[in-house]
Amino acid sequence: MSARRRSEFEIIAEVLAPLSRGADLAFDLTDDAALLTPQPGECIATTADALVAGVHFPRDEAADFIARKALRVNLSDLAAMGAAPMAYFMTIALPPDIDDAWIESFAAGLAADQAEFGVTLSGGDIVSTPHEAVLSITMMGSVKQEAAIRRSGARIGDRIFVSGTIGDAALGLKALQGELGSASNVIDSLVERYRLPRPRVSLGIALRGLVHAGIDVSDGLVADLGHICQTSSVAAHVRAADVPLSDAARAALSGDAGLLATILTGGDDYELLFTATPEFDAASISAKVGVALSEIGEIVKGEGGVAVIGDDGAPIALDHSGYTHR
Amino acid sequence: MSARRRSEFEIIAEVLAPLSRGADLAFDLTDDAALLTPQPGECIATTADALVAGVHFPRDEAADFIARKALRVNLSDLAAMGAAPMAYFMTIALPPDIDDAWIESFAAGLAADQAEFGVTLSGGDIVSTPHEAVLSITMMGSVKQEAAIRRSGARIGDRIFVSGTIGDAALGLKALQGELGSASNVIDSLVERYRLPRPRVSLGIALRGLVHAGIDVSDGLVADLGHICQTSSVAAHVRAADVPLSDAARAALSGDAGLLATILTGGDDYELLFTATPEFDAASISAKVGVALSEIGEIVKGEGGVAVIGDDGAPIALDHSGYTHR
Repeated sequence: MSARRRSEFEIIAEVLAPLSRGADLAFDLTDDAALLTPQPGECIATTADALVAGVHFPRDEAADFIARKALRVNLSDLAAMGAAPMAYFMTIALPPDIDDAWIESFAAGLAADQAEFGVTLSGGDIVSTPHEAVLSITMMGSVKQEAAIRRSGARIGDRIFVSGTIGDAALGLKALQGELGSASNVIDSLVERYRLPRPRVSLGIALRGLVHAGIDVSDGLVADLGHICQTSSVAAHVRAADVPLSDAARAALSGDAGLLATILTGGDDYELLFTATPEFDAASISAKVGVALSEIGEIVKGEGGVAVIGDDGAPIALDHSGYTHR
Repeated sequence: MSARRRSEFEIIAEVLAPLSRGADLAFDLTDDAALLTPQPGECIATTADALVAGVHFPRDEAADFIARKALRVNLSDLAAMGAAPMAYFMTIALPPDIDDAWIESFAAGLAADQAEFGVTLSGGDIVSTPHEAVLSITMMGSVKQEAAIRRSGARIGDRIFVSGTIGDAALGLKALQGELGSASNVIDSLVERYRLPRPRVSLGIALRGLVHAGIDVSDGLVADLGHICQTSSVAAHVRAADVPLSDAARAALSGDAGLLATILTGGDDYELLFTATPEFDAASISAKVGVALSEIGEIVKGEGGVAVIGDDGAPIALDHSGYTHR
């Protein structure tokens, strides 16, 4: 441990404890456990995700972006359930070359997103590793049990909706890997989406009770729609032309039509994908929360399959249905 | 990824989902979040700990022991609060050399301790790492807010109690590192305590409402008593002769008196350390839960300090007050 590096106890007391101050019963992170109390009648929706340096973010990524991405992938899971964020617990395995400046930047990233999304650090653990940093976050939100949005409720005849735009993050990752020959302004816009997901927390809460099934798009549009179809015992038809694309994604696609597969099956969009009756009023929800919603297809009879229909009316062949976070 | 290794999705569906079957609303681990509902009037005590291969357990440790140790360090934190275990969330970063047999043994270890301690896997994440395995567990227990045992309640005049025996795990770690010249039966007994903590869950629940402050001994007896004293704004005197030792620890100590410092400041005991009034009936609680309790000292006026008094009535000099999990 270098002289410029705080100890585990010092990091908790000096850098992380201030992040717990808003929490109900986190005891400044000085006790063995925090005490969480849900709102009367609500239950605690809980999700967990881990990120490994060099796998889920570049080794040289800015520490505040790493912190925010780690929070946001969990916030996106809560959004998919329609839960309101409450608290999170974080364990960090820190390699020896991480210094105090990195830790302070990391904490600043946490603080920024705590303020933006209304969630508070309530506990955790810091350990050392001789290798890459590994972050694990378990996040809790509040939702009435009967209002929670599940994957398993899709019904035949439902329309399929998705928020925002699809494919940007996967194209951004390709750009970071030097595999995208687009203009620099296009690349910057796509990389930004990969670096910093925009979890649709307000949208998820607005969708409570209005939709049949929902999920966040983390493994890729086709794979995540497949998860809904498999747990709901139905199938899905998606119209490729209706999948919403950003200007940057359109620009990249116009230069290389083969990128359509990346867009449809790439991961890390963190948009919400959901199914609802044809009467669902997407326009009014969209106006209410300020997030674009697109109808991209419908739920049909079947056993978990997802077909993406091209402009010629034939299904598009896709090598693999989703991105696997290795 | 080798041919003998299940994918992330297959591990979840085939190996881990069966471990979630008893859980209330974990949805076979197929949804974005699990829904936890505390008992009416109770809150959810939550704790998180991470373990790194090569740091917190030997690289070649048996997979089922790794799983059980990871659960037990968290169970011990819940025990320290007096909380009854409910659910846990686990993220695992898996290196490429881990195969299906390892994963199945790991799951068998989880299953054994789920049955022993009444806790159920309710969610998590599996990711790959090119380096060492990193496990992170966030565990939830149920306790009434006013009954939760805190670190901060120690009062001047309180007696200090500890369960079981102290120092075995630290001596066991020394033995694993080849630094203990004891007989093999002594070493086996000590190493066993290091490999598999015995969280005092029933004791913690039995202590609700009867004690002023409590903690589990993970950083070392002196350091953890220091945590109680600091958060309670008091100090402590411990009588070295009254610190309970196993036969194995006594045997090791008789061969090398210098090991007393290891016993007093070593970590990983996972016994409960607590303070209570002189009227506290340790014998009846001990008989009720079948765990030995020893009175080792008392809380005095001061500002966080812990003095261990030797047989000559003078404080014992200790190089460092506790083991830091690097």
